[in-house]
Amino acid sequence: MGDVAQRLAEIVGESHLLTGEAVGEDYAGDEALVGEARVPRYVAKPATAEEVAAILALATEHRVPVTARGSGTGLSGAARPRPDGILISFERMNSVLEVDTVNHVAVVQPGVTLSELDAKTAEAGLGYTVYPGEMSASVGGNVGTNAGGMRAVKYGVTRHNVLGLEAVLPTGEIIRTGGKVVKTSTGYDLTQLVIGSEGSLALATEVIVKLHPRLAHGSTVLAPFSDLDQVMAAVPAIVSSGLAPHILEYIDAFTMAAITYTAELSLGIPEEVREASQAYLVVGLENRDADRLDADVQSVGELLTELGATDVYVLEGGSARKLIEAREKAFWTAKAAGADDVIDVVVPRSAMPVFLARAREIAAKTESGIAGCGHAGDGNVHLGIFQKDPAKRASLLHDIFAEGMALGGAISGEHGIGRAKKEHFLELEDPAKIELMKRVKQAFDPAGILNPGVLFD
Amino acid sequence: MGDVAQRLAEIVGESHLLTGEAVGEDYAGDEALVGEARVPRYVAKPATAEEVAAILALATEHRVPVTARGSGTGLSGAARPRPDGILISFERMNSVLEVDTVNHVAVVQPGVTLSELDAKTAEAGLGYTVYPGEMSASVGGNVGTNAGGMRAVKYGVTRHNVLGLEAVLPTGEIIRTGGKVVKTSTGYDLTQLVIGSEGSLALATEVIVKLHPRLAHGSTVLAPFSDLDQVMAAVPAIVSSGLAPHILEYIDAFTMAAITYTAELSLGIPEEVREASQAYLVVGLENRDADRLDADVQSVGELLTELGATDVYVLEGGSARKLIEAREKAFWTAKAAGADDVIDVVVPRSAMPVFLARAREIAAKTESGIAGCGHAGDGNVHLGIFQKDPAKRASLLHDIFAEGMALGGAISGEHGIGRAKKEHFLELEDPAKIELMKRVKQAFDPAGILNPGVLFD
Repeated sequence: MGDVAQRLAEIVGESHLLTGEAVGEDYAGDEALVGEARVPRYVAKPATAEEVAAILALATEHRVPVTARGSGTGLSGAARPRPDGILISFERMNSVLEVDTVNHVAVVQPGVTLSELDAKTAEAGLGYTVYPGEMSASVGGNVGTNAGGMRAVKYGVTRHNVLGLEAVLPTGEIIRTGGKVVKTSTGYDLTQLVIGSEGSLALATEVIVKLHPRLAHGSTVLAPFSDLDQVMAAVPAIVSSGLAPHILEYIDAFTMAAITYTAELSLGIPEEVREASQAYLVVGLENRDADRLDADVQSVGELLTELGATDVYVLEGGSARKLIEAREKAFWTAKAAGADDVIDVVVPRSAMPVFLARAREIAAKTESGIAGCGHAGDGNVHLGIFQKDPAKRASLLHDIFAEGMALGGAISGEHGIGRAKKEHFLELEDPAKIELMKRVKQAFDPAGILNPGVLFD
Repeated sequence: MGDVAQRLAEIVGESHLLTGEAVGEDYAGDEALVGEARVPRYVAKPATAEEVAAILALATEHRVPVTARGSGTGLSGAARPRPDGILISFERMNSVLEVDTVNHVAVVQPGVTLSELDAKTAEAGLGYTVYPGEMSASVGGNVGTNAGGMRAVKYGVTRHNVLGLEAVLPTGEIIRTGGKVVKTSTGYDLTQLVIGSEGSLALATEVIVKLHPRLAHGSTVLAPFSDLDQVMAAVPAIVSSGLAPHILEYIDAFTMAAITYTAELSLGIPEEVREASQAYLVVGLENRDADRLDADVQSVGELLTELGATDVYVLEGGSARKLIEAREKAFWTAKAAGADDVIDVVVPRSAMPVFLARAREIAAKTESGIAGCGHAGDGNVHLGIFQKDPAKRASLLHDIFAEGMALGGAISGEHGIGRAKKEHFLELEDPAKIELMKRVKQAFDPAGILNPGVLFD
């Protein structure tokens, strides 16, 4: 394999290749709580699509596994490399190439972080509306997992906000899919196929994302409920109202206590209300017009009261921002609290009460703890799992995932399968679909070099 | 092939199978203006997914081509069967199975027409927001072509409004993709891959579509401009305004004259304004609140005037509806006027003025006529082509398509490639992408039975 190292050095330049002991632990994994981090044999840092293409052609020639890495903030182990493989780090391909104010798109390289993109688009009064809760995440990583986040209830997930790609096929061809257009009907949608494929079909080297006008006025409403089912019942009523919230989150009492404690955040909710609350609903509203926003906040407050909220708090700017940030950090809070895994099952929003009730029963059976929050408008439930015993945890996860699927949902709404949830995915998913996906994989990647062991065995 | 006929009769029942002379011309094609209609050998009318699966397994066994048909309103010849093949007509699978008011989805069979779905969802105050301009079109056909229409500027196209499918693979397996959820991250997105595949990968037997609350108040604003470039320059300004129109159409003067004449529609525009107008912009606004709508109409009127409109007309309900209907019938008007083909190139909206200017130059070179209208907010330009000579027309189309692609667009925004635009698609598209798509096709359809001759040779 000395030959591979030499060829890689020729492709990216010696100073942009790490091998052997020079490869640090930083490249060994992502944020998945389970599975072992693994140092790759090579870390290559290409600067262009052509360099990526040369690396993949080389890897196909020598049958060397290749894993792509953005910021390494994924939660499913999809950026965890193979010890015998090449890790392509997109850290040098980190430019916002264009913010196009006429077509309302940005063209970015995959290593751009969401916070960089947010800052660049803000200058133009526009914004990329996928906020998966970790602004250091890269756009390329978002494409890989089809990242979601809080604003999906209004703006959709990565899939709905990526219009085109430049991507490199495992065999070394560079293709362009989609464009600065919201629609095409010209053959199979390769953009959508690559999105969410977790680095197993092709590697994005340029991403065209949709931008939306930033609305000048926003407000955050917090409503405690004495009963979790009432929270869930409130969700469709709020969606139907036409008030079009851009945030619609539920937070269970345990998680609310943990995230506010961690963030040292006081929301001014009296202790007796907190003690009587099983869960909270957070509703974010935005408008280009301040008066309309005020009227909508009033309406949503009245609606929440009708729907059984024990109280309604319109949060001040500072508290609102802090609560949203604390909610976005729920993963870290769960991790700090000793969670052994995190999951993000998605179910039809009507099924959330049943799903949560059954998940609690399943947890009780194995004496495990579960607590969480989620994107209520999307039916996407994030749960921290507290169970040290791996066998019990595997059984618990299996049963919870099976329950979510039986209710018409899926194992993951936005984190992905990666390595961490693969065993369950392969066990629970329809074998006809798994076989079909494998044949699609083969159509893209005949040598099987891209992220082997992710999604499939 | 007598065996095939007998087996088909066993599958769907004798009364639901047509063969030989019993197959009428009605099943011979769609609304594409070019290419020959062709009567298929068999027309099978299944009632269930299981029957569809049995037909496809039989077809794979005997290597018989299969074409799916909804209402036959497509414009690209994708529902034009093979003379030696089976046409599966979904006319009996035409039920709205469920309108789910909690999850805001409808579950429908592929043969359901848009008008039926519209009526059913209206009862619940909800709506399916894809309006491709032909309400007799079927949902299954919409899935096949990734149909768009006027409201895509706000609500997106079929791709953005289909959440899940039951689909039958060419090898006879029935799979379920997606669900009553807006997001999943569990393997490749097979839903999105089937959408827009023009019946070449799998046949949808059930479709889960997204519904939106119907907003109670709507208004239509019409603005004539003396200059087509001004119309195009106005589009991004209106999109940026945050007024979020659900319709944003341009209509050139020739087309406006033709469609209003055909519809016997008087819009109250003085003759001197009409004579001085090169094009019109139609802006549709909607709101759940009447006062907000009025204020928005006022704002859009002022904005249009600033942007150079020579006048602004707020159309009364009746006139507005008739104008939108007349615009939707633009294809029929073009056909009646003797158009030899229709195309729907999509380009970045910033490129519309350049694209239209170049298209006019290209048309002039071959002494052809072009006239049209389009979804200005999406950069989707619909042009009627007036050129009787097939060789000249092919050269004209080639040059116009090449121009659209050079500007970052695609051959078709919503009509699809089918048989009618295949020659240009195969000539102009990146061969690496064509080869990749063919391998994906092979992954789904190893025997190549599904719609051979559509998209690829």
